[in-house]
Amino acid sequence: MNYRELANKYGTPLYVYDFNHIKEQFNEFKNAFKAKKSLICYAVKANSNLSVLKYLKEMGAGCDCVSIGEVNRALKVGVPKYKIIYSGVGKRDDEIRDALKNDILMINIESEEEAQRVEFIAKELGVKARISIRINPNIDAKTHSYISTGLYENKFGVDVESAKKMYIKAQKSKYLTPIGIHFHIGSQITNIEPFCEAVKVVSSFVRSLKSLKIDIKFFNVGGGVGIDYRGEETINIYDYSKVIFENLTGLDVTITCEPGRFLVGNSGKFLTKVLYEKRSSKKRFIITDGAMNDLGRPSLYSAYHDIEVIGSQADVSKADVVGPVCESSDFFAKDRELPKTKHNDLLVIKSAGAYCFTMSSNYNTRAKVAEVALINGKDKLIRKRDNFNDMIQNEITCI
Amino acid sequence: MNYRELANKYGTPLYVYDFNHIKEQFNEFKNAFKAKKSLICYAVKANSNLSVLKYLKEMGAGCDCVSIGEVNRALKVGVPKYKIIYSGVGKRDDEIRDALKNDILMINIESEEEAQRVEFIAKELGVKARISIRINPNIDAKTHSYISTGLYENKFGVDVESAKKMYIKAQKSKYLTPIGIHFHIGSQITNIEPFCEAVKVVSSFVRSLKSLKIDIKFFNVGGGVGIDYRGEETINIYDYSKVIFENLTGLDVTITCEPGRFLVGNSGKFLTKVLYEKRSSKKRFIITDGAMNDLGRPSLYSAYHDIEVIGSQADVSKADVVGPVCESSDFFAKDRELPKTKHNDLLVIKSAGAYCFTMSSNYNTRAKVAEVALINGKDKLIRKRDNFNDMIQNEITCI
Repeated sequence: MNYRELANKYGTPLYVYDFNHIKEQFNEFKNAFKAKKSLICYAVKANSNLSVLKYLKEMGAGCDCVSIGEVNRALKVGVPKYKIIYSGVGKRDDEIRDALKNDILMINIESEEEAQRVEFIAKELGVKARISIRINPNIDAKTHSYISTGLYENKFGVDVESAKKMYIKAQKSKYLTPIGIHFHIGSQITNIEPFCEAVKVVSSFVRSLKSLKIDIKFFNVGGGVGIDYRGEETINIYDYSKVIFENLTGLDVTITCEPGRFLVGNSGKFLTKVLYEKRSSKKRFIITDGAMNDLGRPSLYSAYHDIEVIGSQADVSKADVVGPVCESSDFFAKDRELPKTKHNDLLVIKSAGAYCFTMSSNYNTRAKVAEVALINGKDKLIRKRDNFNDMIQNEITCI
Repeated sequence: MNYRELANKYGTPLYVYDFNHIKEQFNEFKNAFKAKKSLICYAVKANSNLSVLKYLKEMGAGCDCVSIGEVNRALKVGVPKYKIIYSGVGKRDDEIRDALKNDILMINIESEEEAQRVEFIAKELGVKARISIRINPNIDAKTHSYISTGLYENKFGVDVESAKKMYIKAQKSKYLTPIGIHFHIGSQITNIEPFCEAVKVVSSFVRSLKSLKIDIKFFNVGGGVGIDYRGEETINIYDYSKVIFENLTGLDVTITCEPGRFLVGNSGKFLTKVLYEKRSSKKRFIITDGAMNDLGRPSLYSAYHDIEVIGSQADVSKADVVGPVCESSDFFAKDRELPKTKHNDLLVIKSAGAYCFTMSSNYNTRAKVAEVALINGKDKLIRKRDNFNDMIQNEITCI
């Protein structure tokens, strides 16, 4: 793709997503699971742009949502309600109520206390809530502590013993129907071992539930499959599905997956222009028009993103790539070997399709940027850049 | 103030700012500097709500802005252009152009390369740009590395030697007028020593510029004065001004200050409701309706915020206070001694007036929250809560 043309047409900073890449990734996932009943629910939080959701819906994806806002996004683009799961560790009463009213596939529950709220609200509405329970298998996903979720010290899910009690209680309830089980041990996992362990624990638990006449229909393996940010060896999806298949022999379940980053992460590029290079005796800084409010993964997780300078290859030396925000945490890379740049040169920050735009803010009264889709080589604006009025609209009426 | 009433009236999560506290803080600052010519330019990035800016403007404050968006906010509420400074390490050409067209007090420049851009654009517009230069005095502010800005390894400012060359060059330029000097060594500083050192370095540099017939009219000491988050000993503002006065004897300059956190930080409270408590064998979690997208300082800086549970004092034990966002980084406190809570109990997170709402995002399709001002005991909505349409408005038109 011609990044410079896109930058000129839409301005910078800019997110560009290659939808064909998303299609390939989705098809790879689908094919890996086609030997069994499966439902791929895209993890909306990774990239919730309505056009991304619509594109995935048209290929048959459902949605894994973590707020009523995300459920509403899914419904807005026509994802069938029976393909929508509502997950997350904390749900407000009004969110639970709306989810039940919308009759989505199921609510994924993460604590006994949450089960009580869902039961209470289902009773109030006179409905029977389909639920799944998230198991915390206490397995170390060996990833960044901020994106590890499968240890007891994390806020997510419940241990197997507690889950058993919850299933038995739910089974007896007039207002709950336990139909699923769920686990998710972390994000950006590049080692299949923790997965294997988790699948083993949870599938054996499903068998023990069966003997209690609790019939689990949806076996939700969560998401977390890592992608290649900097040449990492990643998990082969066929190995991944094989491990799951092996552990589910004889169980009549629909395998539910929640890939997010895997589908969209490497579809995205963040385009940002060089404002100027600044050289001191100690340091070289490439100062860009993009900043931490646009793409926060480096400052929040010390995440690595590959960076390419378009059209420049000479005079390579170490540089910090930094944005205009008045914080030392505002950087995209530190001590990265990069060619010399000049005013208006274009930088492409790779692997920017997941957890990038969705985390962006208006910090420093900076406009949230535009997003563009590339579909079969054609570009299409899928989000307009904020203007000043967008940023003050909910304040100006109150002044 | 009656937090529960406010929570019921406006819903949660909610930011509440005590404007009378802002007034007291502003007056303390003003009084400390009244013996000399001074201009207090509020650092808009700390809390850019239009009503906050208007309130400060009415007391005579100017604005320190770090983007054209912030300049536009200042202008929108009627801050006089001659009280507006545009700072920041990276400025786009269109931002420089708009700042010059608006004829604001000055542009604060942080590199030789930026000086060239400003000169180029001033020439294009046929104007003479009033500038100041930010000195990096290479002084360790002894604060969190993410909010330390006065060391050579940081992206901010230029060393004294480079600044000297820049001043000489600017003085000769037909399109630049150097009228100010600036430094800012970091944020949340609670020790006056680094300030003293910086003032010494920069004031002595101003004297050496005088001998070169470069007449600095604005001596900008930046911001960075810390506040009490958890019982810290903070800097006495009279000691602070005294140090500055002592170093400026005989110099005819207007002292410019850029307090942000000091003015608004402790005016703010973040109100959030308990969804449920979750207890596992290992841990106790208080799960709230507020999350890292609303208030990100704990996850980004490991910042401490005091937390009060309204109306509950019994059964104190250690708990993690966490939000509903699907990340382990989504927490407000870890292992904090807090009383037992139940569904709908109200938590007040203190010191939430600065760098809290401004950094908030719509991550997980969560609405940006409402903001309320308390003025002489009366409450007033100063920002409406996002609704679903606000969150998708720039996407839905592109679908």
